[in-house]
Amino acid sequence: MRNIKMVVAYDGTRFAGFQRQAGNILTIQGILEESIAQIIKEQVSLIGAGRTDAGVHAKGQMVNFHTTHHLETEKIIKALNSILPEDILIREVSEAAPGFHARYSAKSKMYSYRIHHAQLRPLFNRRFVYHYRHCLDPRPMQDAAVMLLGSHDFRSFQATGSSVKTTVRFVHSVDLSVCGPELIFTINANGFLYHMVRNIVGTLLLVGNGRITPDEFGHILRAGDRTLAGATAPAKGLCLEEVFYEE
Amino acid sequence: MRNIKMVVAYDGTRFAGFQRQAGNILTIQGILEESIAQIIKEQVSLIGAGRTDAGVHAKGQMVNFHTTHHLETEKIIKALNSILPEDILIREVSEAAPGFHARYSAKSKMYSYRIHHAQLRPLFNRRFVYHYRHCLDPRPMQDAAVMLLGSHDFRSFQATGSSVKTTVRFVHSVDLSVCGPELIFTINANGFLYHMVRNIVGTLLLVGNGRITPDEFGHILRAGDRTLAGATAPAKGLCLEEVFYEE
Repeated sequence: MRNIKMVVAYDGTRFAGFQRQAGNILTIQGILEESIAQIIKEQVSLIGAGRTDAGVHAKGQMVNFHTTHHLETEKIIKALNSILPEDILIREVSEAAPGFHARYSAKSKMYSYRIHHAQLRPLFNRRFVYHYRHCLDPRPMQDAAVMLLGSHDFRSFQATGSSVKTTVRFVHSVDLSVCGPELIFTINANGFLYHMVRNIVGTLLLVGNGRITPDEFGHILRAGDRTLAGATAPAKGLCLEEVFYEE
Repeated sequence: MRNIKMVVAYDGTRFAGFQRQAGNILTIQGILEESIAQIIKEQVSLIGAGRTDAGVHAKGQMVNFHTTHHLETEKIIKALNSILPEDILIREVSEAAPGFHARYSAKSKMYSYRIHHAQLRPLFNRRFVYHYRHCLDPRPMQDAAVMLLGSHDFRSFQATGSSVKTTVRFVHSVDLSVCGPELIFTINANGFLYHMVRNIVGTLLLVGNGRITPDEFGHILRAGDRTLAGATAPAKGLCLEEVFYEE
């Protein structure tokens, strides 16, 4: 049995998220599984590292699947890219170790969030940025962002109604950089709660807008209370940049 | 009578070009005129600097129109951008001198053409680049591109069947730069024949691909024979970057 891993990029705009859903709902996993079946004439069950939400993009989603089919990886990537729609692209295909699991083997994942900070709405990048018209000072946002580093209970930034065993996650790195009219927030952590990045960004925007101080941001993080944090930032600004594995 | 000028950007993907057409055909001019009429309750006739083709984009198209309406330019830009579709954006609105004509007053126009040179097809920028998979060496292309500088009869690069008084144009500057997987060709000239940039790019690709030498490119330019030049490069890579005026 071969274990095949693939790095996948997609424009999430028209999809109801990564995860396959019952019925006639357009998902990345659904399209990928159908396309793989079309090529190797075998039903496969795809495992994805991150179950990105509706409208969320990916540059480096990792997936894997098992098959007995002998088709070479170079042929798999060519065949898949020729039948996949233009908003999904396979970037790499390779053989994985038998025990490799795209989700459970992942050590950390990196997400980016792009804020288009300008009076005029974005045009060419409109599908990939969140347009924010109000005042925004990146310096206090940077002061707040570094408070996320290390191990914390991120319950304040978890979507209400979610239930997971533990809400503690370890943040390896954060960055907030200004690039022309864009503010790009990047976060690398060993795991993410549901809506965690978008809720963090929504709260960082309150800091940048002067509605709360970096200290108050730190208080919200420690309080473990979702009602104190900001609104969930829109999906379109979010992108799964890369998934990291050991070795 | 006021003369209003506007800098307009658009993603040309879903339009049949800039110029208004009879019937139910989607054009930039058509949408702009309807939107202006909706705001100032007055039918206007829009003049555009460049009549970009179907699928061609613009970052800095210049247009102007006359009106007796007194609405301030700051209100015109806000009102227009709030009703225009997301793929058209007004970047600037200001009062022009009475004699200003977006097309006839233009001294030169600058176009860019983006070639995505990679094995894998483009994803996030797929609407704005031409995907070219074959070998491409930018150095001979640069040697060929500089031959376009100055005054030439560009008949070899004019679409067959066009008729204009003169096919002589003056090229102020050309550039061919490599930016990651992209090759970006930029040309600034006092005017352009029909399909001129796309036919030049199609011929530069023959040079980059080793099918012809830069000297042969020069020969094609001097020959005044469209049948010698390369194929017309696809519309999606082309963008009207800026229109230049005196003062």
